[in-house]
Amino acid sequence: MGVLSEGLTQILIPVAAFIGLGFALFQWFLVSKVKVSGGYGDYSGYKDRLINEGETEEGVDSLEVSIKCAEIQNAISVGATSFLFTEYKYLGIFTAVFGVVIFLFLGSVKGFSTESEPCTYNTGNICKPALANALFTTIAFFLGALTSVLSGFLGMKIATYANARTTLEARKGVGKAFITAFRSGAVMGFLLAANGLLVLWVSINLFKLYYGDDWEGLYESITGYGLGGSSMALFGRVGGGIYTKAADVGADLVGKVERNIPEDDPRNPAVIADNVGDNVGDIAGMGSDLFGSYAESSCAALFVASISSFGISHDFSAMSYPLIVSSMGIVVCLITTLFATDLFEIKRVSEIEPTLKRQLVISTVLMTAGIATVTFFALPSEFTLFNFGTEMSVKNWHLFFCVAIGLWAGLAIGYTTEYYTSSAYSPVKDVADSCRTGAATNVIFGLALGYKSVIIPIFAIAIAIYVSFSLAAMYGISVSALGMLSTIATGLAIDAYGPISDNAGGIAEMAGMSHEIRERTDALDAAGNTTAAIGKGFAIGSAALVSLALFGAFVSRAGINTVDVLTPKVFIGLLVGAMLPYWFSAMTMKSVGSAALKMVEEVRRQFNTIPGLMEGRAKPDYATCVKISTDASLREMIPPGALVMLTPLIAGTLFGVETLAGVLAGSLVSGVQVAISASNTGGAWDNAKKYIEAGGNEHAKSLGPKGSDAHKAAVIGDTIGDPLKDTSGPSLNILIKLMAVESLVFAPFFAAHGGLLFKLF
Amino acid sequence: MGVLSEGLTQILIPVAAFIGLGFALFQWFLVSKVKVSGGYGDYSGYKDRLINEGETEEGVDSLEVSIKCAEIQNAISVGATSFLFTEYKYLGIFTAVFGVVIFLFLGSVKGFSTESEPCTYNTGNICKPALANALFTTIAFFLGALTSVLSGFLGMKIATYANARTTLEARKGVGKAFITAFRSGAVMGFLLAANGLLVLWVSINLFKLYYGDDWEGLYESITGYGLGGSSMALFGRVGGGIYTKAADVGADLVGKVERNIPEDDPRNPAVIADNVGDNVGDIAGMGSDLFGSYAESSCAALFVASISSFGISHDFSAMSYPLIVSSMGIVVCLITTLFATDLFEIKRVSEIEPTLKRQLVISTVLMTAGIATVTFFALPSEFTLFNFGTEMSVKNWHLFFCVAIGLWAGLAIGYTTEYYTSSAYSPVKDVADSCRTGAATNVIFGLALGYKSVIIPIFAIAIAIYVSFSLAAMYGISVSALGMLSTIATGLAIDAYGPISDNAGGIAEMAGMSHEIRERTDALDAAGNTTAAIGKGFAIGSAALVSLALFGAFVSRAGINTVDVLTPKVFIGLLVGAMLPYWFSAMTMKSVGSAALKMVEEVRRQFNTIPGLMEGRAKPDYATCVKISTDASLREMIPPGALVMLTPLIAGTLFGVETLAGVLAGSLVSGVQVAISASNTGGAWDNAKKYIEAGGNEHAKSLGPKGSDAHKAAVIGDTIGDPLKDTSGPSLNILIKLMAVESLVFAPFFAAHGGLLFKLF
Repeated sequence: MGVLSEGLTQILIPVAAFIGLGFALFQWFLVSKVKVSGGYGDYSGYKDRLINEGETEEGVDSLEVSIKCAEIQNAISVGATSFLFTEYKYLGIFTAVFGVVIFLFLGSVKGFSTESEPCTYNTGNICKPALANALFTTIAFFLGALTSVLSGFLGMKIATYANARTTLEARKGVGKAFITAFRSGAVMGFLLAANGLLVLWVSINLFKLYYGDDWEGLYESITGYGLGGSSMALFGRVGGGIYTKAADVGADLVGKVERNIPEDDPRNPAVIADNVGDNVGDIAGMGSDLFGSYAESSCAALFVASISSFGISHDFSAMSYPLIVSSMGIVVCLITTLFATDLFEIKRVSEIEPTLKRQLVISTVLMTAGIATVTFFALPSEFTLFNFGTEMSVKNWHLFFCVAIGLWAGLAIGYTTEYYTSSAYSPVKDVADSCRTGAATNVIFGLALGYKSVIIPIFAIAIAIYVSFSLAAMYGISVSALGMLSTIATGLAIDAYGPISDNAGGIAEMAGMSHEIRERTDALDAAGNTTAAIGKGFAIGSAALVSLALFGAFVSRAGINTVDVLTPKVFIGLLVGAMLPYWFSAMTMKSVGSAALKMVEEVRRQFNTIPGLMEGRAKPDYATCVKISTDASLREMIPPGALVMLTPLIAGTLFGVETLAGVLAGSLVSGVQVAISASNTGGAWDNAKKYIEAGGNEHAKSLGPKGSDAHKAAVIGDTIGDPLKDTSGPSLNILIKLMAVESLVFAPFFAAHGGLLFKLF
Repeated sequence: MGVLSEGLTQILIPVAAFIGLGFALFQWFLVSKVKVSGGYGDYSGYKDRLINEGETEEGVDSLEVSIKCAEIQNAISVGATSFLFTEYKYLGIFTAVFGVVIFLFLGSVKGFSTESEPCTYNTGNICKPALANALFTTIAFFLGALTSVLSGFLGMKIATYANARTTLEARKGVGKAFITAFRSGAVMGFLLAANGLLVLWVSINLFKLYYGDDWEGLYESITGYGLGGSSMALFGRVGGGIYTKAADVGADLVGKVERNIPEDDPRNPAVIADNVGDNVGDIAGMGSDLFGSYAESSCAALFVASISSFGISHDFSAMSYPLIVSSMGIVVCLITTLFATDLFEIKRVSEIEPTLKRQLVISTVLMTAGIATVTFFALPSEFTLFNFGTEMSVKNWHLFFCVAIGLWAGLAIGYTTEYYTSSAYSPVKDVADSCRTGAATNVIFGLALGYKSVIIPIFAIAIAIYVSFSLAAMYGISVSALGMLSTIATGLAIDAYGPISDNAGGIAEMAGMSHEIRERTDALDAAGNTTAAIGKGFAIGSAALVSLALFGAFVSRAGINTVDVLTPKVFIGLLVGAMLPYWFSAMTMKSVGSAALKMVEEVRRQFNTIPGLMEGRAKPDYATCVKISTDASLREMIPPGALVMLTPLIAGTLFGVETLAGVLAGSLVSGVQVAISASNTGGAWDNAKKYIEAGGNEHAKSLGPKGSDAHKAAVIGDTIGDPLKDTSGPSLNILIKLMAVESLVFAPFFAAHGGLLFKLF
């Protein structure tokens, strides 16, 4: 037994969660001190004092401009809320149906018998019936789905609450605007991390009331939590991704390319849809996604622990090690956040990116010490772990290395991503330079950049896997994933910061604020592109580790001890699995393309038929564009969603667990590459375009200004990158995670009834 | 024992090879009857009767035009020959050095001992020393390299011999031109198939003089033949691919986009380099590639057979089953060719594609009967095969199914490729349609198309693998690969037909021939784009099967019986292996991009500094452009080549055979997807552009004509597709095959001395 008693563990975890929640609310309070006139509930009047109390640096922005900010913010918020509610209606139906599927499939494992059974791993003891596991898995699934939806929704709320505030603060200087955007990101980060932890902790304790000493059944059921989280994330990412990019691509193709009006120009009918999209795709989708990763890695670690000595000997503190690591993460991230918001102040545009990068380093260094502490206190000095039918003896400091290497691999991925997507370094500059010879070379160089950016992250993940796998088998992998995600609050803060700044820039443009303010928000946004890419890098890296952990848990639960590539069943699984990311990307890319074409037609139609629109005398019909995006995303998210949800069911039922194991491994090793390259290529193109637009040095000036041939080529690259980086790429994380967690949940069914096709022949 | 005696086998194989050679020479003779003035050796004069004897349909093409044809053909031929000789100088050095490496590595397995040893599989018998195997493997490597180079070189020779003849025949009608181009392709196909078979047969018989009854050692050494073939193919594909696409992209970017002059316009300084490139890349590279596949699948099958009952019981006819299948393939393809050249005649443009497709069906149907015949005669009705440490009992009709399913999977891949890359079907039409909204949507739709086109080929390959693996383990896979390649002569004929037609069109344009003739060559070329994509599909599909067979042979030879994904060594190999195609593509894409930028600068410089060039009064300096392509390709082929050649050596030596097995499986399952999608995306963009240019229906007309915005967007897509479909994509086949065959050859070394890093810790 470790130093930490069960009682103390039961106190520390919820305390950490409440600290996180409290800190999030406090940040929200600080953000709310920036007053926006005509905001929530006061849309008609604008009678209050309209802008913030402090002195603004410029006098050019009149009262009218500020009213406009509030108006636009409201339109974005209303649009995003209405879309999410519509989406949740569909998701509600899906969740209900899939909950029934889970119950029926798992219930059928022992023919819906209500008899208790001898335990599988904790031999000699009696465990609860399979039917109970089916029921509790379904409940956990609902809880996971609910928490995931909540994470995304709250993130969207704070983001749409913060965007106009960031714009208004930009009048006081770049530092103030940065802090507002960053604090808002932190709200989302801490809410999500604390919520995820709290719900999990509460569920475990409630489930324990029924399960008592049957920890096998308890933690088997808890895996449903991960499945619920990730299945919502899938639709959130895909639906949100299609929504935002259909609007973005459509707006750019007509606005920038044909009409030669700036990005986010209020005359463009698709501009509100574009800004709504940032919030439902990049914020709500990302929130659900990372919550899913967090829930899944916790579930995978808990499941493996439950069939190891922790579970067998009922050592609750050691069992709860994954939750304690996450608790420590909340505290560490809290301290880290203060470095950005209170201990230092940003004064120049050039300090934004270093500050955000510093967040990563600080949280990583502090967390390393944090891990050492919790590992020492929570774990016994030596214990045994389940390793595919055999047992391996592990020391507590082994687990320290597992968690720490995941954490540091995350940092390596973050830094690599920054190098390949920030215009401060040569890769993006080379891509920008290739725009001289047109869009074709821009695309060739951009694709090559994305392919190349895969190398270091893959080696980082491979080293993390090798070390943690060797030290502590699949448990090592799952806590390694948790290590990478332990600083999730900070990761999400710098990630959510991106779309908030993007929106702030959009609002500045739409409200007709001065060029200087737009320059400031652009600088915030450029840094945001890089941090968004870093966030995606984290999401993908953690997804790879999480899926491997889930894969291991699935294999353990399905009762197979080897997955031999030299058997045809496994190999064809591997091959077909490696194909799935392509099939999935084909669907999502095509969806964005088709929806964008419709958007283009509508935008063109409005420009052609609404008199005075181009001159700014008439208002465009924003609502129709919002409707096009909404309809397209809801319709088009179904086929890729079905592909991901049905593949494990079909592969497991018809071909059995070996083939399914192959499919999971194949989609994992292939999907990671596609996801990283897609997201970095897109980020690089976006920043290459911004680099030319900003004209920050001689080289950039020689390529610009806006409207030059090189700039036009850069815009084409940016547009192609949109669906890559915001739809296909990030959805692929979920593809690999979700298939793995679904397989884990359904493993008993596949083991009992799977492989029908091979049984027939 | 089967019906076929050893003596008869020893007669039938060389007879089939000589029939193939004879048929190739006969086709060459028929092509040579088309007279081109001023051809080989008569470059100064043009004194002969200048065009073909027959009546031409048009009078517009004067004597002068024909002289020009001869002149251009000569320039292309001289350029291609000179490049290949330069390339071969580098390859010669590489081959010599790598030969030494092979000898030293393999010699060191038993410490360069000259003592005979007990056999590994044929227990109780005495086998030749490892040093002898090292020596003979090195010799086989040299022979494979030589045959590969010869295949590529002869293909290039006939292609450059045929291109102007096709142009001149186009004056008589599209049918005549088609037959000339197709016959020339057939020369290459049959030369290659017959040569490959003959050299292999001769080598086996010569090696037998030394090895006698030690068939283990004999067929182990023969694997060097595959390694030699594929390593030449790697440099041929990469070097040739960079050469051709640097020139093509460079020529298009300035010529079509900036100067608005047609493709292949003689005023464009890069036009000769472009046409030379078609011959060194698409012809010589493809020839080496498919020869490599053929050699490797034969070697893999022979190796597995040698350690199975065929080898142990010294049944030479059964042992030679792979060679007998290939012999039958030559005869079947001979009959198939007659259907295109003699039994039917093409009269209309619309008949070209169906005729080429019919070739695939006819050869597949006939070959199915052929396989049944040879399987019945050559094999005993029942025998045992080696299956990773165990033995499995197999019936002869099992092998029939293995070969046949490979063959039919090839057809499925061919048809799918055609569907996704021919402008006759909706996918390419959709891509063309997306050009309405600009280059960005064109690229998004094109990428989505490529991703989608992966699905059916992967299922086809997976089914082929499952069936043949289940029926006859790794031997089944290797003969399945041979089945897909058994109609290689026909496959290569329709594949080589593409670049020949492309060149013919180029010559027509450069020689200033009439619009009507250019239209005919364009139609030939458009069909050629599709067949080239089909050829690449075949190359990739067969590469997948071949690599798997080699992988199996490697694993057997390295003495491991499982490759378990659930071990860290294997999994990290899998992950890093899946990354290699991206790393490799990053290098080759960037190389093409950089070389194209240099080409653009040179072409621009010439247009700006040579007075009268644009008006056609002055001649461009073709030689400088040829030099840029040559230098770039020779310099840039080294890093990707090193990546492929060194990876197995480093992985095997430092991390051992399990990790290497993971790397091979990972690169296989990931590389296939990248290769198929890249080659189909590129093919689709090219044909979408041609579809708009041709304006064959109302829809196409609404997008055109040349120079319209939609057409400009299509040109950008086409340019991006160039390096994807002709450099990165097809090189990836070789990456996966070559790493596998190299691992197979070095397996004894890795098994004896590998895994240094893990041994240290």
